[in-house]
Amino acid sequence: MKIFIDCLPCMLKQVLEASRMATDDIIIQEQIINEAVKILSDYKEYGCSPELALAMHNTVKKHTNNSDPYDLIKSRDIKAAKKIYPFLKSFLQNKNDSLYWALKIAATGNVIDSAIYNNIDVEKSTELELEKEFAICDIESFKQELKQAETILIIGDNSGETVFDKVLIENLKQYNINIIYAVRNNPIINDATVKEAYESGLDCCTSIISTGCDAPGAVLEYCSNDFLDLFNNSDLVISKGQGNYEALSDCGRNTFFLLKAKCPMVSRRLGVNLNEYVFKQNKQERS
Amino acid sequence: MKIFIDCLPCMLKQVLEASRMATDDIIIQEQIINEAVKILSDYKEYGCSPELALAMHNTVKKHTNNSDPYDLIKSRDIKAAKKIYPFLKSFLQNKNDSLYWALKIAATGNVIDSAIYNNIDVEKSTELELEKEFAICDIESFKQELKQAETILIIGDNSGETVFDKVLIENLKQYNINIIYAVRNNPIINDATVKEAYESGLDCCTSIISTGCDAPGAVLEYCSNDFLDLFNNSDLVISKGQGNYEALSDCGRNTFFLLKAKCPMVSRRLGVNLNEYVFKQNKQERS
Repeated sequence: MKIFIDCLPCMLKQVLEASRMATDDIIIQEQIINEAVKILSDYKEYGCSPELALAMHNTVKKHTNNSDPYDLIKSRDIKAAKKIYPFLKSFLQNKNDSLYWALKIAATGNVIDSAIYNNIDVEKSTELELEKEFAICDIESFKQELKQAETILIIGDNSGETVFDKVLIENLKQYNINIIYAVRNNPIINDATVKEAYESGLDCCTSIISTGCDAPGAVLEYCSNDFLDLFNNSDLVISKGQGNYEALSDCGRNTFFLLKAKCPMVSRRLGVNLNEYVFKQNKQERS
Repeated sequence: MKIFIDCLPCMLKQVLEASRMATDDIIIQEQIINEAVKILSDYKEYGCSPELALAMHNTVKKHTNNSDPYDLIKSRDIKAAKKIYPFLKSFLQNKNDSLYWALKIAATGNVIDSAIYNNIDVEKSTELELEKEFAICDIESFKQELKQAETILIIGDNSGETVFDKVLIENLKQYNINIIYAVRNNPIINDATVKEAYESGLDCCTSIISTGCDAPGAVLEYCSNDFLDLFNNSDLVISKGQGNYEALSDCGRNTFFLLKAKCPMVSRRLGVNLNEYVFKQNKQERS
């Protein structure tokens, strides 16, 4: 997906925040921003937002020698998500259409960030978000394809979210399907890498692989052959979050996008309101 | 004041908003942003934020031939402010230290924007904001200087705010002082020009002049000789809002800064919390 001009201020703000996570040195923060705005001014040279985000966030790593500025935040998010994991399981047990709600739990994980974790009544806050139904939900088509499917590839997004994804994966087990969970190749923003997938305990219920791509979205051009092989040959693909949507929305293969539309541009593209949840099939076959 | 790196994403976002006010043409909006990010990447060439903001906002005017994208917003803000003008006057009548509260009314005008005008109970919302006292208030020093002063120059900021400033000016009349109110030379963001000062009825109680500067802050380097003459020779100067503070905080002359610290960088520089009100004297004499 082409880079929306709305992404530019948003991304610059995020790099500024990342620079402050990585160092307290104001001079280095300025060096990072100086380089980041130069990259930003050439934004048209990048194919999609995750690519541009990677280039901009790399300035933080380069100037601070900190390969993972979000390390503490990711650990905190996973810890907080693990704490409500039993609640997520019992929430699901009380629902009739368990697949729908397992998908909804995984989508909700996309927004359970530090803000909500700071809330005293985390379970209550999460429940309120969980109960919101999908604005677009192609679950019937998904269920049909699931019947014949032997393998499903889930492309993960944020770190805390992996605990929510675990609930979905455990639910999918009933379909006797081979599940593979793909994560970022290297630390980028608060996204999950293999390290965070293990920290969340995903290794107990699924295979974990790297996309081979360092961007905060699976940009196929930069993914490994191993990942591409899985991406092309899995019977089903679930792509989680906005970053993967931006990288894969035009990819051509049949993909189910599972996310919350957190920005006005993505929500407009999806045809939903801002902050609505989506489980949307992109049926277009690769040309 | 040097440009804070925090200003960069904020300013880019504002130019994006301005581009959408000026045109519905997405191609033109992109052309504006393309040029604005190029300017942003050279931000170190600008002396202060208002200068950079001017250069970036000029791209909107250039690509749309719209010399005043905020025209409607300014009119709406002035109309809304005029509606609560009688309330502001009666609020002041009920206060003992009328000068303190007249200054506080003028400072509060700095934040009474469309958000609060959309509120049904505008008076109540405004009153809540008005009752917040100054975090820094150099009123004693101001009162002392006012006794001997013959002229006072007020450098205005936003358009809606001019109606609030009228209340301050009417209060200052009791000191038998010659009052001059300075506005931006040309439309920039939602700041007041001579047009908006007349629209607010400021011409009934004060002389109105242009700073000669087009930036959203009185950058002395670009001000007219007429303005500089007044700036240098007025007995008192009140500088309103963050833009003028950024342009004038290092100017050297004795100035009273009247504003709400709306951004973390400005509040840190002023030594107050975010969103606190300030009436702060900068005593440093020009070297």
